[in-house]
Amino acid sequence: MIRYSVILGNLGNTRDRFLSSGYKDQPPKEEMLRQAASIPGVSGVELVGTWDITRQNVDEMGSLLAKNGLACASVLPDHFSQKRWGRGAFTSKDPSVRAQALEETIIAAEIARKLGCKLVNLWPGQDGYDYPLQSDFIKERQWTIDAVAMAAKAFPDLRFSLEYKAKEPRTHSTWARAADTLFVAQATGLPNVGVTIDTGHSFVAGENIAEAAVFLAHFGEKLFHLHFNDNYRSWDDDMIVGSVHFAEYVELMFWLKEIGYEGWFSMDQYPYREDGKGALQGSVEFLQGIDAMLDETARGEIRGIIERGEAVESTAWFRKKLFRK
Amino acid sequence: MIRYSVILGNLGNTRDRFLSSGYKDQPPKEEMLRQAASIPGVSGVELVGTWDITRQNVDEMGSLLAKNGLACASVLPDHFSQKRWGRGAFTSKDPSVRAQALEETIIAAEIARKLGCKLVNLWPGQDGYDYPLQSDFIKERQWTIDAVAMAAKAFPDLRFSLEYKAKEPRTHSTWARAADTLFVAQATGLPNVGVTIDTGHSFVAGENIAEAAVFLAHFGEKLFHLHFNDNYRSWDDDMIVGSVHFAEYVELMFWLKEIGYEGWFSMDQYPYREDGKGALQGSVEFLQGIDAMLDETARGEIRGIIERGEAVESTAWFRKKLFRK
Amino acid sequence: MIRYSVILGNLGNTRDRFLSSGYKDQPPKEEMLRQAASIPGVSGVELVGTWDITRQNVDEMGSLLAKNGLACASVLPDHFSQKRWGRGAFTSKDPSVRAQALEETIIAAEIARKLGCKLVNLWPGQDGYDYPLQSDFIKERQWTIDAVAMAAKAFPDLRFSLEYKAKEPRTHSTWARAADTLFVAQATGLPNVGVTIDTGHSFVAGENIAEAAVFLAHFGEKLFHLHFNDNYRSWDDDMIVGSVHFAEYVELMFWLKEIGYEGWFSMDQYPYREDGKGALQGSVEFLQGIDAMLDETARGEIRGIIERGEAVESTAWFRKKLFRK
Amino acid sequence: MIRYSVILGNLGNTRDRFLSSGYKDQPPKEEMLRQAASIPGVSGVELVGTWDITRQNVDEMGSLLAKNGLACASVLPDHFSQKRWGRGAFTSKDPSVRAQALEETIIAAEIARKLGCKLVNLWPGQDGYDYPLQSDFIKERQWTIDAVAMAAKAFPDLRFSLEYKAKEPRTHSTWARAADTLFVAQATGLPNVGVTIDTGHSFVAGENIAEAAVFLAHFGEKLFHLHFNDNYRSWDDDMIVGSVHFAEYVELMFWLKEIGYEGWFSMDQYPYREDGKGALQGSVEFLQGIDAMLDETARGEIRGIIERGEAVESTAWFRKKLFRK
Repeated sequence: MIRYSVILGNLGNTRDRFLSSGYKDQPPKEEMLRQAASIPGVSGVELVGTWDITRQNVDEMGSLLAKNGLACASVLPDHFSQKRWGRGAFTSKDPSVRAQALEETIIAAEIARKLGCKLVNLWPGQDGYDYPLQSDFIKERQWTIDAVAMAAKAFPDLRFSLEYKAKEPRTHSTWARAADTLFVAQATGLPNVGVTIDTGHSFVAGENIAEAAVFLAHFGEKLFHLHFNDNYRSWDDDMIVGSVHFAEYVELMFWLKEIGYEGWFSMDQYPYREDGKGALQGSVEFLQGIDAMLDETARGEIRGIIERGEAVESTAWFRKKLFRK
Repeated sequence: MIRYSVILGNLGNTRDRFLSSGYKDQPPKEEMLRQAASIPGVSGVELVGTWDITRQNVDEMGSLLAKNGLACASVLPDHFSQKRWGRGAFTSKDPSVRAQALEETIIAAEIARKLGCKLVNLWPGQDGYDYPLQSDFIKERQWTIDAVAMAAKAFPDLRFSLEYKAKEPRTHSTWARAADTLFVAQATGLPNVGVTIDTGHSFVAGENIAEAAVFLAHFGEKLFHLHFNDNYRSWDDDMIVGSVHFAEYVELMFWLKEIGYEGWFSMDQYPYREDGKGALQGSVEFLQGIDAMLDETARGEIRGIIERGEAVESTAWFRKKLFRK
Repeated sequence: MIRYSVILGNLGNTRDRFLSSGYKDQPPKEEMLRQAASIPGVSGVELVGTWDITRQNVDEMGSLLAKNGLACASVLPDHFSQKRWGRGAFTSKDPSVRAQALEETIIAAEIARKLGCKLVNLWPGQDGYDYPLQSDFIKERQWTIDAVAMAAKAFPDLRFSLEYKAKEPRTHSTWARAADTLFVAQATGLPNVGVTIDTGHSFVAGENIAEAAVFLAHFGEKLFHLHFNDNYRSWDDDMIVGSVHFAEYVELMFWLKEIGYEGWFSMDQYPYREDGKGALQGSVEFLQGIDAMLDETARGEIRGIIERGEAVESTAWFRKKLFRK
Repeated sequence: MIRYSVILGNLGNTRDRFLSSGYKDQPPKEEMLRQAASIPGVSGVELVGTWDITRQNVDEMGSLLAKNGLACASVLPDHFSQKRWGRGAFTSKDPSVRAQALEETIIAAEIARKLGCKLVNLWPGQDGYDYPLQSDFIKERQWTIDAVAMAAKAFPDLRFSLEYKAKEPRTHSTWARAADTLFVAQATGLPNVGVTIDTGHSFVAGENIAEAAVFLAHFGEKLFHLHFNDNYRSWDDDMIVGSVHFAEYVELMFWLKEIGYEGWFSMDQYPYREDGKGALQGSVEFLQGIDAMLDETARGEIRGIIERGEAVESTAWFRKKLFRK
């Protein structure tokens, strides 16, 4: 039984560098939680530091979650939305900023504990570099390993999941692809550090999302979390799931079943100009549709198709599903 | 009623730079024609100079076509597979090679006439450049305009369709995108010069294939021909149609109906490791499936969806078609 | 003698979707103008509606420009930074928004006239679409042609230059590439409508920037304006010019001399985390360095290199310049 | 002191899928070796199975190498140029093909030993997949680990270096990026298995080449070998080094010195239409130019630049080198 969640902020205002006041209005948190809870199948939300959750509002948020029957799927510390992180959080050249980045992680972990949430999702978006001759690749990667290890050691009851992204807001992120982020997770030597795949980030990294999931799960036991959205492969467009791609989501969902993934299926979009709730609901419905399609019969067919590896056969299978004949 | 065709060579051997002897065996032409004719819905083939058709075998090929009940959808002069074209055909810096490129075009037109074929498809793959400071952009584009104009003027009963491709085998092609190729077509001042969209080339150019088709057809009355294949957007993988993309083919097929496109729907793939006939047939079936999906009701729905422009609604429409609910 | 300018806002605060309050502080306009004027070689600024210039402050801005010895290189109406443009300006499905987009263009033209500025640069960033089945390609392109024609007809003493960009903030822009934007310019039938190349936009569109410039200038007499910045080719990173690429800027500068381009060389960057003035000055210095390199001797050498088209020779020429031997 | 080598076949004929007979003529091996030896700075060659070296000609090739004063920098078993590998070598679904792939590796190792060569470079280009639902990601990656481990265990005196490439000839390669290939190398548990960076492959993978080198060398002690060529980032164009990029090669060469890389600097290009020797020599000269630029003073400057991380300063440093002021 798949557990679906949404990132709460997806229901709020959306901004970009050209329209920094935002494309929409910001609804109150209560309204956003009500909307999340009203999406059929959704039972959890992810909360982002600064934007959604702080030490100050954690009790209030806990009550609101309970009232709406929602679990906290993860807490994401804010390592990206404040001026102090502008030139890096864990990889800032300023040691006091690095200490603050760790502190934010600790705070997020405390919040997660209070909310009965088992996962801290780390997306240190400002960690990386923009220009040639700007990054000390050795020190900076090591700093991320050390900080994650410190936080994860302090909270052995929580899982820390590292979300990679090839670029944006930096032209090059420190955690850029599945395998290099697996390396960071393993370098901590801790069982409670793993990796988050954001399907859109994986597309932009040039990965096949199903292969990335299998790589982390089967070879490293490190697929801790999943963010879903769609794009045109060259940028993190954060669109409704299934709006561009179909076959690759089928392949991903098939393999998630094969490897026994039991984490959340969380929607992470940026519906700049769309109704937030409608966009998230559409994404969940798309995944539910594929989930229903992949019954035991279909999975058996797919296993045979993969074993034979003939594209004429695999594409025929897709057409059968698309056109019902 | 859609007329489907295939490029004959797609049924033959396939090679690349690493495996230049080829992934498969080369069947005899008779066999390839029989296979083409046996694909349900296919009524035409495109013939490539050197590879499929020459002045010498034109009568024989005409008989074989007749015998198999196939029309010649187009003739493609060879401007790419011989050493003499290696540094350009119409844009060669050597005037005698440029003359030969024109001569090949004339020969192809004569062959087309003999076969009762109305279309000469020009894909001068070697025209372009690889390195900075290698191309005289002014002269070279003008040479292509002049050559096309000369051929098209000499054969006013035929249509000459210019096929663009952003790159490969050159890192930059002279006819790279829809709009710049429309410019070349219009610069000839001739009504019988237009443009071919190859869906895979259009993806690689970063175009939306439906928009490119509308651009050429509605704004320039210049959409003369269509080649179908699929890819992962960054390279001309020449895969089975629909193996990667779905929504964008639906959008293309919808608009082809809106603009009243009446040309061929021709399969142009490179089934390196696949059964050629199976790969082509799968592509045709995919397009037939979409064609059937786009009945008058569906087209009416889509017109409304486009008028309102809400992605929540358009993606819901796709899910309805994918999952039948 | 090259005239360099900068977009004034490049000296101000920078924001993105994650850090919407901005990476830096916003200096007062007077300070930004002083900084622009202090960059050696810079004699003009481009002013953006809403951000820099409005009907209300035009006289004040005129005085400040005069005081700082700066010309107004262009006025850019704001078609992107307000909520009302969020779903398109010229291509909004709402006719009253389209009317407002035209009105903003007219206001920008009036402002330009008052400031003695000859160029209105149109970058309607919100014009385009995000999802399949969202755009009426026919109507929307036509709306942009009509609006531009109306404005340009009303101000025959000004030039209107259309700036294309393949994507962002929409996943697909209406004016996406050089040639399709040339088509729009020519469809107005007006001599005072042309095209702006932003070097970064051209890289992202997969164009060779020098070829795009020649295409517009030689074949259409429509290269009206130039914006300079650099990127890694897949996104509009808006970096310091020359930070990633070198050879292609040399090729561009060579051809700009060959075709006799006489417009502004304007810096358009987004120095998110950099000192704005330093970033712009670095870009100007890079172009000045290439300009000095391309003396009559060098240009003669390059003409020969292009005529012969040998990459071994052209790359040797670059090494001679890079390594002085 | 940098040791430069070239892949011998780069001096021979070049083919692609459109011009499978080749753009040039194939010189005799003796001639190619003479040419390699005559490039100033080059002291080694890499030999490719089937194309250059077989069990049959190993003694003859050894004599020719000695005669020309060339070392064998590496042997590359052929896992890509024969029909039997068309659907995979180490990852073929046919166990007998997998056995042959291992056998070819063993043969290459024996040849390397005979030639006094310390490195076997594995580029199993046909390993991967093309379509969704075609690959068993678990089995296939494991097969590559097992085969490499078997060969490397049998030849503990040799180093086996795994060369990754995101795609081509498959749309997805099994060894696609630096970090996932490091994972394979480490999974063998053997000290004599490492990774080859091909700079062009790294560009196409979206990596920063310097960061990839540091990642493998510093974090894994696994940077065994380097192949040099240039491209436009979206495809493996295999161009002359430095023809497109400059800053990133400087960054790479700087870091190779910092991490103490002592392997070969090997040229691996595809000079389709260029004089092979001229193309390779140009690449070596480009790297020699950067090597000379990076004297102790320059490296000290760069260390400070990286420590401060200011792009205004780093780009100024590049301009100083480019324009000598």
